[in-house]
Amino acid sequence: MAKRLPDHLMAGYNSFIAKRLPGERQLFRELADKGQHPKTMVIACCDSRTAPETLFDCAPGDIFVVRNVANLVPPYEPDGEYHSTSAALEFAVNSLKVEHIVILGHGNCGGIHAALSPSAEPLSSGDFIGRWMSLLDPAAKAVGANELMTGRERQSALERIAIRYSLKNLRSFPFIAALEAEGKITLHGAWVDISSGALWAMDPESGDFSMTTEE
Amino acid sequence: MAKRLPDHLMAGYNSFIAKRLPGERQLFRELADKGQHPKTMVIACCDSRTAPETLFDCAPGDIFVVRNVANLVPPYEPDGEYHSTSAALEFAVNSLKVEHIVILGHGNCGGIHAALSPSAEPLSSGDFIGRWMSLLDPAAKAVGANELMTGRERQSALERIAIRYSLKNLRSFPFIAALEAEGKITLHGAWVDISSGALWAMDPESGDFSMTTEE
Amino acid sequence: MAKRLPDHLMAGYNSFIAKRLPGERQLFRELADKGQHPKTMVIACCDSRTAPETLFDCAPGDIFVVRNVANLVPPYEPDGEYHSTSAALEFAVNSLKVEHIVILGHGNCGGIHAALSPSAEPLSSGDFIGRWMSLLDPAAKAVGANELMTGRERQSALERIAIRYSLKNLRSFPFIAALEAEGKITLHGAWVDISSGALWAMDPESGDFSMTTEE
Amino acid sequence: MAKRLPDHLMAGYNSFIAKRLPGERQLFRELADKGQHPKTMVIACCDSRTAPETLFDCAPGDIFVVRNVANLVPPYEPDGEYHSTSAALEFAVNSLKVEHIVILGHGNCGGIHAALSPSAEPLSSGDFIGRWMSLLDPAAKAVGANELMTGRERQSALERIAIRYSLKNLRSFPFIAALEAEGKITLHGAWVDISSGALWAMDPESGDFSMTTEE
Repeated sequence: MAKRLPDHLMAGYNSFIAKRLPGERQLFRELADKGQHPKTMVIACCDSRTAPETLFDCAPGDIFVVRNVANLVPPYEPDGEYHSTSAALEFAVNSLKVEHIVILGHGNCGGIHAALSPSAEPLSSGDFIGRWMSLLDPAAKAVGANELMTGRERQSALERIAIRYSLKNLRSFPFIAALEAEGKITLHGAWVDISSGALWAMDPESGDFSMTTEE
Repeated sequence: MAKRLPDHLMAGYNSFIAKRLPGERQLFRELADKGQHPKTMVIACCDSRTAPETLFDCAPGDIFVVRNVANLVPPYEPDGEYHSTSAALEFAVNSLKVEHIVILGHGNCGGIHAALSPSAEPLSSGDFIGRWMSLLDPAAKAVGANELMTGRERQSALERIAIRYSLKNLRSFPFIAALEAEGKITLHGAWVDISSGALWAMDPESGDFSMTTEE
Repeated sequence: MAKRLPDHLMAGYNSFIAKRLPGERQLFRELADKGQHPKTMVIACCDSRTAPETLFDCAPGDIFVVRNVANLVPPYEPDGEYHSTSAALEFAVNSLKVEHIVILGHGNCGGIHAALSPSAEPLSSGDFIGRWMSLLDPAAKAVGANELMTGRERQSALERIAIRYSLKNLRSFPFIAALEAEGKITLHGAWVDISSGALWAMDPESGDFSMTTEE
Repeated sequence: MAKRLPDHLMAGYNSFIAKRLPGERQLFRELADKGQHPKTMVIACCDSRTAPETLFDCAPGDIFVVRNVANLVPPYEPDGEYHSTSAALEFAVNSLKVEHIVILGHGNCGGIHAALSPSAEPLSSGDFIGRWMSLLDPAAKAVGANELMTGRERQSALERIAIRYSLKNLRSFPFIAALEAEGKITLHGAWVDISSGALWAMDPESGDFSMTTEE
């Protein structure tokens, strides 16, 4: 059986079975019987260092999670094509009726780095990353042109701008805008410094980010 | 600051800071300095009960994770549109050079359920879930038409069929097919029973699923 | 006598006499007899919240301090005019032979704010602040044009850019450049978050700033 | 990180963090939120022995501080050039609306010593100190010619003359003269004996200095 899944995953699964499942077996059973009712949807990056369940110490059932490169929400486009993130939004908001949506960005994001390095060779002839990150093109150009900032500062600036852009796009979905107007859903921005684990939260008024903890 | 993020996330973050971060601070720092080098990419569902980091007891840096509704991989479509999942695949395979891709399905999947209930009202006028799950249309129709199976059996059958469909689509990406032919990447299917936590792995030859451990 | 100096200064002076001077009387006497030999020069802002002696808990004799609005070093201009900051640099480097020069910037800087608000009325017909902050004009324009950043982010970016600009100007002084080339003087950048007291130090290679303490 | 800032400053910062910041954390936060409102501006010397925050035991937010060599105020010159000290004056008076300006001189001043030693080699080819101290040329010549006074007496005399000269220059700024006429701002002279810590205050009528406290 070992060959059917990577060894490190099987080892991790055995650890889950031994250490965590016993305490949550009842919870899993109830969540299967009664269905999931997460209060919060999190849109996070695929990055291996930014699992929201780790950062927020989540139990099963706590958060409904989309993960795509650079935690982007594309604009509302009801064009009959399939849209992965929009489908998840529709399901979370209209079926599960989540009360919060959190865009969770992070430092050292490879997707944001790619957006700021437009001259790089595409990763494949399909240039899927290039197309995906082109959602940020105007912002990436504006930030990338500022040579007075260091590369890291440009990266950090675009990471925050991208979160605000995704929040704006969330509001372009009529069903989200309507629920927000009624006070039934709240949109949040957050950013995690993966070098220290420090979580920064966005001020909903100003769009500024500040650390949630004091040293 | 509490109002900037949902209370339950802040409570979880404080728990992470107090209990988990101290033991992983050095790891986070190294992963920030040296970059991520996950060996495995996992494509899982947004469902709040199926966090792969929980199921596989992952440390930061272990797995690169896409999460969309019903853990689907669409077919290769280099059409210049933006494709969230394809972008993540391209990045994981060609930039991070992962050695494994795991499609992780699960029981009680709401997306699969929607695919089997085609007459339901769309969740919004954009019908994003309807469009997204239409990727499974031929399979959903074939399974749905089989009235000899119970509703639960049809659901479970389509969950497995969908995993094999995504594995087939993975192989439609030329760069993945090439690496698999060279033995540099391995594709896996898995399914988790959320009512018990039991993990089922797919036999790569037959496509059958069987439980990885006895309880 | 109270009218000769503001009451709050006299109260503070009496506190100095009562609490601090007894422990440092001998030090003051020696420093008067033998002259000052500070190892470090600090160029800081006039801001009432950024006294370097407070931040670095300095004893008398520790640091030679210039304070001007926005802690700027103008470029080398040996034009026969009087230049306050250049005179202090010349004295510190060539007479006192300091081994370090630190440019100490800070958050919420009023001068930087003025540089980013060029349309504001001059504070007097002489427009001294406008002229002084015009040293940063190109940078202020580049940063100010980025409307995707919040006002606070633009401010923070320019605060850091200004520190790097002053470091560059320091190196335009031939006597500083020569001593740095010989390894006899080291130039540093730092920035303090006045809302938390957190000190950020500049990486001399990349120009990036990072916090000096972990929470 | 230690290499990024001089060791003695990092040690001092750690002492600040451990001993002083805890008691002033709330004050720093309020000063960041509400802005600075110092009642007093102090123009002091760069000398490492004359930090006004030490001498007046100041809390953050108490005083707005210019420090240049020999605590000089140049005359009002609205010539479109950049003037460090005039810019700070304009900002303190017209933006922060300070109620007091204190010129704080001191004994053993290296700049005053240089003004009295005109034949000395310039400290660099730019002769920035020579030019800066030339603001005092007529006074320095008059005092220097008086061979009946000892060198130390000449130095001490010029230190006081320079304070009165700076006060006169302060009044050459139209916006300061106007506010003083309205009773909205008060100008002060002070001098500190760095060998004993004794503070001398200037009588605003006569220009005489006398000690503020007996030892």
